[in-house]
This record gives sequence, C-alpha cells and structure tokens, in this order.
Amino acid sequence: MIKQALIGVLCGAAIMTAGILIGHFGITKSSSSEPSWVKDVAKDVDESLIQKFLSQVDPIQIQENLRELTKVPHMATSAGDEQTVQFMLRRWQDPETGLDQAWREEYKVYLSFPDPKNANKVTVVSPSDAVLHTVREKEKIYLPDQEDPDVVQPYAAYSPAGHPKGKLVYANQGKPGDYQHLNQTVDLRGTIAITRYGGAGRAAKAINAAPYGVIGVLVYTDPLDINDGLMSDINETYPHSWYLPPSGVERGSFNTDFGDLLTPYLAAKEETYRIPRKDITGIPPIPIQPIGFEDAYVLICALDGEEAPSQWQGAFNCTYNFGGPGFKQTSAFNNSDVKLDIFNFEEEKNSSNVMGVIRGSVEPDRYVIYGNHRDSWVHGAIDPSSGTSVMLELTRVLGMMVKQGTWRPRRSIIFGSWGAEEFGLIGSAEYTEQYFTRLSERTVAYINVDIAVFANATLRASGMPSVQSVVFEATKQVSAPGLDSTSVYDNWIRYSNRTSPAHGLIPRVGYLTGAGSDYAAFVHYLGITSMDFSYTYDRSKTNARIYPAYHTAYDTFDYASKYIDPGFVSHQAVARTAGNVLIRLADSLVLPLNCSDYAESLEDYLNTAVTLYQEPLQARMISMEPLKHAVASFRQAADNLEELIHSSDLANETPLKVRKINDQLMLLDRAFLNPLAFPDKYAFRHVIWASSSAGKATFPGLADAYANAESSGQSSDWDKVHYHLSVLSQAIEGAANMLVDVI
Amino acid sequence: MIKQALIGVLCGAAIMTAGILIGHFGITKSSSSEPSWVKDVAKDVDESLIQKFLSQVDPIQIQENLRELTKVPHMATSAGDEQTVQFMLRRWQDPETGLDQAWREEYKVYLSFPDPKNANKVTVVSPSDAVLHTVREKEKIYLPDQEDPDVVQPYAAYSPAGHPKGKLVYANQGKPGDYQHLNQTVDLRGTIAITRYGGAGRAAKAINAAPYGVIGVLVYTDPLDINDGLMSDINETYPHSWYLPPSGVERGSFNTDFGDLLTPYLAAKEETYRIPRKDITGIPPIPIQPIGFEDAYVLICALDGEEAPSQWQGAFNCTYNFGGPGFKQTSAFNNSDVKLDIFNFEEEKNSSNVMGVIRGSVEPDRYVIYGNHRDSWVHGAIDPSSGTSVMLELTRVLGMMVKQGTWRPRRSIIFGSWGAEEFGLIGSAEYTEQYFTRLSERTVAYINVDIAVFANATLRASGMPSVQSVVFEATKQVSAPGLDSTSVYDNWIRYSNRTSPAHGLIPRVGYLTGAGSDYAAFVHYLGITSMDFSYTYDRSKTNARIYPAYHTAYDTFDYASKYIDPGFVSHQAVARTAGNVLIRLADSLVLPLNCSDYAESLEDYLNTAVTLYQEPLQARMISMEPLKHAVASFRQAADNLEELIHSSDLANETPLKVRKINDQLMLLDRAFLNPLAFPDKYAFRHVIWASSSAGKATFPGLADAYANAESSGQSSDWDKVHYHLSVLSQAIEGAANMLVDVI
Repeated sequence: MIKQALIGVLCGAAIMTAGILIGHFGITKSSSSEPSWVKDVAKDVDESLIQKFLSQVDPIQIQENLRELTKVPHMATSAGDEQTVQFMLRRWQDPETGLDQAWREEYKVYLSFPDPKNANKVTVVSPSDAVLHTVREKEKIYLPDQEDPDVVQPYAAYSPAGHPKGKLVYANQGKPGDYQHLNQTVDLRGTIAITRYGGAGRAAKAINAAPYGVIGVLVYTDPLDINDGLMSDINETYPHSWYLPPSGVERGSFNTDFGDLLTPYLAAKEETYRIPRKDITGIPPIPIQPIGFEDAYVLICALDGEEAPSQWQGAFNCTYNFGGPGFKQTSAFNNSDVKLDIFNFEEEKNSSNVMGVIRGSVEPDRYVIYGNHRDSWVHGAIDPSSGTSVMLELTRVLGMMVKQGTWRPRRSIIFGSWGAEEFGLIGSAEYTEQYFTRLSERTVAYINVDIAVFANATLRASGMPSVQSVVFEATKQVSAPGLDSTSVYDNWIRYSNRTSPAHGLIPRVGYLTGAGSDYAAFVHYLGITSMDFSYTYDRSKTNARIYPAYHTAYDTFDYASKYIDPGFVSHQAVARTAGNVLIRLADSLVLPLNCSDYAESLEDYLNTAVTLYQEPLQARMISMEPLKHAVASFRQAADNLEELIHSSDLANETPLKVRKINDQLMLLDRAFLNPLAFPDKYAFRHVIWASSSAGKATFPGLADAYANAESSGQSSDWDKVHYHLSVLSQAIEGAANMLVDVI
Repeated sequence: MIKQALIGVLCGAAIMTAGILIGHFGITKSSSSEPSWVKDVAKDVDESLIQKFLSQVDPIQIQENLRELTKVPHMATSAGDEQTVQFMLRRWQDPETGLDQAWREEYKVYLSFPDPKNANKVTVVSPSDAVLHTVREKEKIYLPDQEDPDVVQPYAAYSPAGHPKGKLVYANQGKPGDYQHLNQTVDLRGTIAITRYGGAGRAAKAINAAPYGVIGVLVYTDPLDINDGLMSDINETYPHSWYLPPSGVERGSFNTDFGDLLTPYLAAKEETYRIPRKDITGIPPIPIQPIGFEDAYVLICALDGEEAPSQWQGAFNCTYNFGGPGFKQTSAFNNSDVKLDIFNFEEEKNSSNVMGVIRGSVEPDRYVIYGNHRDSWVHGAIDPSSGTSVMLELTRVLGMMVKQGTWRPRRSIIFGSWGAEEFGLIGSAEYTEQYFTRLSERTVAYINVDIAVFANATLRASGMPSVQSVVFEATKQVSAPGLDSTSVYDNWIRYSNRTSPAHGLIPRVGYLTGAGSDYAAFVHYLGITSMDFSYTYDRSKTNARIYPAYHTAYDTFDYASKYIDPGFVSHQAVARTAGNVLIRLADSLVLPLNCSDYAESLEDYLNTAVTLYQEPLQARMISMEPLKHAVASFRQAADNLEELIHSSDLANETPLKVRKINDQLMLLDRAFLNPLAFPDKYAFRHVIWASSSAGKATFPGLADAYANAESSGQSSDWDKVHYHLSVLSQAIEGAANMLVDVI
C-alpha cells in the first residue's frame, strides 16, 4: 500500500510537473502577461497588402475621376473650384471608401484676374490710330469644352493693368542676356518686346525688360519649342494630335516667389497682417500678355531690323528680325505700334485646401503627407486633374481597406488637395506656414503628384537621394503600362539612367531644386524629405518643352484620354508607384530612407565643387577642407547607421530604439536648413537643394556665390563665397551629427 | 480495476490540469515570452533614489571643489583656465566618480584684453600737462589672492584702444535719457563722461554717449548701489564684511550681443568665415574704462556745473554736479582734463568647453543638459566657481551611482562646462550653433546654474512656466539651509510669491527674458525649455544690485566662505534642488513639464496686452482677436493634454504613446521660435521670452513695437505692430497645434 501510494504520489508529481511545463511553455501567454501592443509595435510592412493594393488600382476609376473633375473649368476660387472642393469632400467623407476625416481649410489669398467685362486686348495700331490687327481674345473652339463661359481669357496673372503702346521688338526668351544683346542694336526705350516661352521664368521676361525702358511685353509659345515645328490645325495640331493649335495660349502666374504675396512667412488668415501691395517683389513691373502663335506669327514675320541670331530663330517660315524697332516698311504694319490694353485686377479671395487623414495605429504622431493641387487654369485635365484622379483612386483603395477594418497604417497619412497652386503654390505654402512646427517635427516624407502623366513613355521621379531605394523597390513591383512583363523600373532605366559608385547602373532620380510644384514649401521651407512622381516623354520622339496643351483651353478630358494616356494605364502605373511608396513609408518598421545614398549625392556635389573651385579659392586663402571634412563625416555616419540598421534585430528590441533610428532618418533633411543661408530667396532654407542660377551640378549657394564673385571680382563677394562655404560645411556636419550615435 | 484505473486517470488529469494552470498563470513568464525591455520602458522616477541623491550631496565636497577651482585666477583662455579644464576632465573621467565620457571642445573666439606690458591709465591732466591725479591701476591688496600676477587689471573688454582727453561730465547711468538730459545743459562734444553701473548695459553707456560727441567714458560702482552706502575699508568693507572696498572695480564684457562676435550663427572653428572686425556691432565706439569708487569720488566731487537731479545723486558726501564741463575752479583740478590711455587689444584665442555625458538607458536620444561656465574674471569664487563646485558635486554623486551600477538615467544627461562666458556667453553659444539640429530635436530641458549662491536667504528660480511644477516638487523635498524643518519651498514662498489662478499662493518663478547667463542660446536661439537656479538675497537687508565683490579681485574663496555661504549649506541646497530637478527630468516616464502652467503665463501676458493696447489698436483697425484666439486655443489644448496624461495608465501602454506625449511637451517651446521675428536682435527667436525695452509685463515684441509706434506715430510703425501681432498669434497657435491631438 505504501509502495502503491508512493508510486501514485510520484506519478502525480510527474504529471503535475508535465502539466506545469506544458502550462508554462506550451501555451502562448495571454495579453495579461505580454502586453498586446508588443507585437503591434514590431510589425513591419505587409507585402501581401501591397500586392492587394496594386491589384485594386483601377484605370477606369481614374478615368471616371478625371471625367468628373474636368466637367467645368476650375480655376482657383471659381465656382468650378468650389465644385471640386465639394467633390473631394464627398469622396473623402464617403462611409465606404473615405478617410478617417476630411475637412477644408481656407486662406484669404492675393490673386490676379483679367476683367471679365473688359477683355485684355493686343492690337496693331497705325499712326492714325486705325486698328490694323487684333490679337485673338480667346482660343478657337473645336469642342464644347472651349465654349464654356468660364474658360478664362489667356492672361498673365500679376501683370499690372496698363495701356502701353510702342514699336515692337523681338527679344527671344527675355533672358537678361537677350535684352542686353538686343539693346546693343536697338534703342529699347518705349518699345514693346515679344518673347517666347522658355529659358527664363515668366515674370522674369518682364522684370528683365523694364531696366532697358521696354514698356510692355508679349509672350507666346513658338511651334519649335512645343509642336516639333508643326503649326496647322487643318491636320497637324489638336484635335488631330496632341500638338497645340495656333490659337492656344499658355496662361500662368507671373511671379517669382511662392506662397501668398501679401503674407510672407505668415498663413494668410482673415486678420493676418498684409504688406502694402507696393512692397510686393518678383512680379512684372510693366504689363505683359501671352498670345497664341498664330498672332505671334503675324507680328514677328512683319518685324524690321537686323536678323536675329540663329539661336533666336523659331519655326515660323520667315526670318525673325530684332524689329527696327517696329515693322518693315514693306509690311501692312509699316510705322505702326503695338498696343496692349491690360485690365487685370488683383483681389483677395478665399481659397481652400481640402485635407484628409488616415490615423496611424502605432505612431499617429508620424505623418506621411501626400499632396496634389486641385486648381487648374481651365479644365486642367492633365494639370492637375490627372494627379487628382490618381490621388482619389489611391484614397479609394486605401480608404476601403481602412473602412473594412483590414488595414490601418503604422503612421498617420495626410492627404492635401491644395488650392491656388497655379498662382504660386499658394495653398501648400500657406499650409506649411500655418503648421510649421507640427509638420516639421512629425513629417516623415512628402509625396507630390501634380501632373501625373505628361506622356506615356517612362516614369520620372525626383526627390532627396535618401528616397532612391524605396522608389526602386516600389517600381520593381509595378508593371509598366502596356508592358505586363516589364516593370516600371526596367522600363525607366532604359530612358534615364546613371552609374552609381555603390549600385552600378540604375535609373536616375532627379533632384527637387526648384519650386515647380507643391513640394517646394516642403523641401525648401520645412526641409522634409520629399519626392515627385509622374509619367513622362520619350525624348527621342518629341522636343516639346512640355505637353502642348499645358495651361490652355485644350487641356481637357478629350485631350487626355485621346492623346496623353488612352486607357489611363500610365495613370494607373503612377498611382501604383506612388501608393506603393506611400504604404512603405507609412508601414515599415524602419523608415525606408537610405542615408548612404544621400552621402553619394553629397560626394558627387563635392567632387564637382573641388574640381571647379578648389584651386582658385586656395589662391584667395579660402580652404575647402572644412567642406571635405563635413562630407566625409556624413559618409562615415551614414554608413555606420545603415550598418546598425542591417545588423540589428530591431523587431525584437525596444520600440524606442527603432524610433530613435527613425527619428535620425526623418530629421536628417531638417539639419540642412538654415533660415539665413539665402536672404534673397524667399523661403529657400535647404542649403543642398536650393535653386541656383549658376548652372553647375554642385551646392547651389556655393555655385551662385562663386559665379557672383568671379563676375564682380570684389573682395566682399569672395568673402561671401567663404561665408557660404562655412554655412554649408556647418549644415553638412550638422546633418552628420544627426546620424552618428546619439550620445 | 477499471474503476481504479479510471480514478487514476481522472486524478492524473486533474493533477495535470492543476499543473497546467499553475504553469500558465502561477509562474511569471521568462524573457522569452515577455521581452525584458517591457518593464524598463515603463519605469518611472525612483523616489528612493532621489532621497539617496539628496543625502549624498555634501557641503564639504563643494567647499573643497571651490578651494581647488579658485587657487588661481582663471580668466578665459588663461593658464588658470587651462588648469580648470584639466581639473574638470580629471573629475569627469574619474573611474570611481566620473561620467561615461568627458572631452573638451575648442572654439577659436574673438576676445579683448588689456596690454599686460602697458597698463590702461586714467589721469587728471592740467593745462600744462602735469598729471594731477592717477587712478589706481590694480585693486588694493588685502590678502595674497590680490597679489597674484594673473589678476587682470580692471578693464572694459571690447573697448577700443585710444587716448581721449577732455573735460569731465557726470552722466548718471549712461542711459539714452541721461545723455539727452545732460546735453540740454552741457555741450558734450569732446568731453569724457563718468557714469555709474546700473540702468543700462555696459556697452550701452559708451554707445549712447558717442552720438553726443562724448569721446571717452568712465564707469564705476557707486556705494549707494552696491554697499548700502558704506565706503570705508577701515572697518566697513571687505575684508571686514561682504561690501566692496573703495578700490574694487567691476570688470566686464562691453558688448551687446552674445556669442563669438566674428562668427555670427556659425561655430567659431579654425577655418570658419569671420566677418571683418569693422562690421562688428554692439561694442563701444569710443574708449571706456571702469574705475573704483575711491577714484570716482575724487573726480565727481570736484565737478563744476549745475547740480545733477536728485535721482542722479549717489552715496558720496558731496553734491554730484553735471560738470562745467570739467572741474570746479576751486578744486585742485581747475581747468584740467581727464585723460584715458587705453591699450586694449583683440585676439582670436582657443577657448574650451568641457563636456561630459551619462548615456540614457531607455531613451539615449533624449538629452537633459546641465551647464555652468568655467571662466571667471579673476578668482571667480562666486562667479562662476560656486556653480562649478555645485556641478562637480552633482556629477560626483550621480557618477558614483553610475559607476557602481546602481543607476542609469532613462534619458541621456549632458554636462557642459562652458568657456568664455564672461566675454559674452561664447562657449555655450558656439556649442548651440555647432550642434543646432541635434540639440534642437533631442533636448528635453536645459538647467543653468551659473552663480550658485549670491546670498544665503532664499532660492531664486527662473524658467519657462512649464517647469514650475517640477521645481516646486523638488524644492519641497530639500531642506532650506540652516533650517532643517523648513523646506526650500516653504522658505522661498516667504521671500517671493504670487497668487496663481490655478494654484493659489505659490513661490514666484521668474522668466528668462534676457541674456544674463548661458541659458540665453538655449532659450532664445534653440527654444529649449530652460531654467536657472541660485540662492539669493534677503532684499529687506540689502539694496546691493549684486553681491559686492562681483567681477572684482575680491571674489575669492576667502570671501565666499566667510561672507556668502559659511558652511556651504546654500550651495548644498542649490545642488540638491538642481539635482532633484535634473533626475526628475531624466528619469520620469512622462516629462514633468506642465503646459497648463504655460497657458497661465500666456493668459497673464494677454490680459496685460489687452488692457494696454486693445483700445488704441482698435482705433487703428488692428484687431487683437487672433491673439486672443491663439491663447484660448493654447489653453484648451494644454488642459486637454494634461487631462490625457492624468487619466491614462501610461505605464501599461505602448512606450510610443508615452513618447508621443513627451515629444509634445519637449517640443512645445520650439513652436514659439521664429527666426524672422526680431531681425535686429542677434539670436533672439523665441517670441514669448525675447528681451524687451518697453518695460511691460507682456509679449516682448508686441510691447516694443507698440512703444516704437506710439513714439514715432508713423503708420509704417503701426504696420509693424500689426505684423508682430500676426507673428505672435501664429506662433502661439503653432504651439497649441503641438499640444492638440496629433492627428
């Protein structure tokens, strides 16, 4: 009995032990012991979700978005613009496919319009005041789209009103050198200059002219620059092709800076202080008006005077002369003047951004921002509604997953439908001014898709070098339009590539050095890692400086669907690419930003700078060693951080360690900001990517300061080169300091 | 048998079940199931550790630190300064009591010295060039300390060299109004002005004088302002008391801006660009020299001319006259001039910060910075070595805990021993310039203890309003010196208090509105939540504008230990207070920063602004509503965040949620920065705490702009008021935006 009892106890003990072991090790602990969030915070991007997203992006949906958005012209603050605001809000507030929240934000911004009751006029006037020729006031009608009464007359926004009359001269592209050259032969005082688009900014064509006494400027698009030389609307131009009809006119904003012109660095709210209008800088001091090439042809081919240089000649079947000033004696316009009657007026109007968000699950205080402007000049099928259609398809697919409860991003996603971009990136700029610190401290990246599809040949991507790897990763997963077995990546590398020291032959990611779209305030003012995507041209097939219907009354649904992207497959490819990048930025455990790739670009800039400047600077006792040291520090720090990322098992470490690394990556670009680096350039603070006029592939402030000193020869200008070198070196060392071990 | 077997199986099953249950619920899961870091990241401040820290802070150690630090004079970049660098490094690198790491960082900075071979001279010279009086060149010797050859001659750093000679006038404190008033009676052209310290900045006394044609300035400390009227060193002044002996002279830096003068906004490294010396602003345009009151007495009492106003009269037993200009006919100096022979020279010299760190365990990328300058004018027992002694005691106690493995802070702690503070906060300013983004993105708070003990009556604390609560919490745990049963808090509230709408009667925490010590760059340039601690005066017992030996050869160990803090118990109280706050900032799970207290200060400023400005601004169509709205937004957001903090069980939530809240609190002050808000004030960017000359307890930029507009009456100046109101409102809305829910 004792033995039996002993066996029983031993068996019992053995069973109990087994039970304890099973209980302890065999059953996953419930949430009471391991907090439920431990798994959530370690979650990485889900590749199957990306595949699901890619499969759901539908070109027909994009097409229908575009059809809706382009029903009527939707110039900023117009009734059509309000219709698009309402449309965006309906879509983003949709209970099935909308976002967590969507709302509008208004700014009272300074805009410029032609007078609808008093059309701008350009005429040729004889000495006896007879009108010999009148420039077409509105573009020729081919389809009902052009008949819409809300098609705004072609004009130059921010051109002053006025009635200059004078002899005509031809000033090529209106660059400083063009006027300088022309002035050697022709007395420009009191003249009207006709210029062609390209080569200089729109406002610059008038700003550069005024010092020579020019009193008015015309601007047109030469068929050489936009139509590969074609001119006839009988069979060559739209509606027979994508080329610009003779009456087509590129509208545009004629200002140099971006953001609301009356409230620099301040969000343009109702009560915000506004500078006196006379203090606005960067707008035309004299009237300027854009016209079609059918009228430019009549004017230019009648010009007297010396023959213009060969580079000034366009596609017209006549010789482009300087102008006597004025017309040939042999022409019908002999002795006549050109007269501009410009009735533009300025007005402060309420413009809306439409904002939408998907709240992040794990790091709601980290934002990935995706933006596109909403306002157009006329119907804006390509600019910007191709991008808006893409954004709406993206939010439909993502919104549906959120509403169905199948997905919520790790980080928050903010969508911005910017207003009044065409007048100078106003909506996005005001947004960054209003939310400066919040955005600056929390934004992981900004993705811009303005014109989604310029043409259907290849992807174009620009951005900070740190985004290259995630863009490559995404584009390898997306099929090129019409080429199911070729990826966007493989297609892209054929059209545009470079050899990287680290990666070999790769597609070329461009830099965001200018202020061409709404990324400007994010890149230059906030220092946020940004990128811009579109589908674009096969440059072996066209020399058009941009798609020909740009900013004209022909940029319509008909044009887009027939000539830019039949079937909307390039739109689909852009949506898939941008969406893939967006999901990776929002969901990856470690931010997919590669700082070693940034180092490669800095080294590239450094090499160019050393080649160009080191010797002459040494001769002036200015050392480039601090810059070299800074770039080397950056390289070392970047490689070490990449090594740390790849050698760590971050999913199993404290989420604060991952956060630390992510903050280093997120804030890297912030370190390049210096609000005092470019005192003459509004809102340009990023010392690596600021715009530059020197035309060198190197650090912009250094290149400009050097060019300036070289041209003036003044020692105070050489001091400025030295000063900027110090600014630059300190910024790069500061960026390296963000990447090195935090303590 | 079957029954028995069945019973056996059932028993076995029951035992097994019990075992499983015990195994699953009864035994804490090992690290393989709950990651070990889950507990670490949730850890809060340990009160027993704070008690241990408080008990270990030893006044004798502080005394011995001070004895070592004050062995020799240690003016910036002198041999004595280098000795203190080595001492700090030895202490911070000590294997038993040191920090994780310590090192020096050098900057090449622009300093100004008297010529050791050619002493500055001030003489009274008769018309026949006979020297009738020579001002004492060095202070009188009472103890061997004053005999040290490294005691620098009293001088005005950054005064130009020069040899002005002219009739003497008395210009009170050298304020703009003083010279204006004097100029109504006396022709100031070619005169030498004698002024007393106080009322205006040092450099200002010369800058304000020059426009009136004054060619040289003397400055002295009137016994009325420093000695409660006492003058005699027979029995009244040091070495018999803390009062200033008649030959004592306050040295100082005579510049307006802070940081290295040749490298604004750039760290002063070897190759950094330096502005031309002629472009330096904010330094005296004419020679200026400080003298003792024994000489000032001789000069002032001999002055001719009208009797100065009663507010200009000091403690001398004679009437202070304006000067004829010049001396009384009845005096020995009749018709004589005063001559300055100033031989100061400027030099770029290497100055060191000594840096030390304790690496954080959980959030190493969050910094609490504690700083004190190291350089003095002479022995600097009080300024700054009282603070250095406190810092060294703090690091000894904390370092010991780290080295023993009993403590490692949650966040990293950085200690800075700043160089060349006396020449214009140079070491700390260069540090913030060099590491701008890194510090700006990661620093939780900056604690400054410069002069630890001015006097032994009560604590003085200044800082952003958000630090009030943690300062109160700490001071309630520290005994007041010599009053074991009274806390520092209870003692403090007796000396300085206010009634808070939220908290009732509480001690008054001051604001850091100026640039009085090394917090300046942290507050104004970086926008980092900062605080400054010291023990200070019983104002019922003395009117001295500062402790009398300030910046003289009498600020010695003997003076400190006899008259400022016998037993070093006030030093101990400051060390305990600052250390307690430091540990709380470094270890608390949720940062102990209270944004509702910040709202209270903004409301206070707003009320004053509305009372002073609303009506007159309304009359000019300038609305204060946006400012009211901004403050109300801030209050709402702050209260909501406080509520969230107190209603959440943050220790059991994802550490990223705590981090989110902590980032909101940490970055709050950053939102108040605007680099364009004060274009005329070097490195002042914080719109709430910038310095102001208007003397109103409200928003500084608004008060100054209003005062300026009111005085000029020009509409462009009223525009500036409106502009600044917009800047201010946007900044406060921006700060509110940091506190509201992140998405």
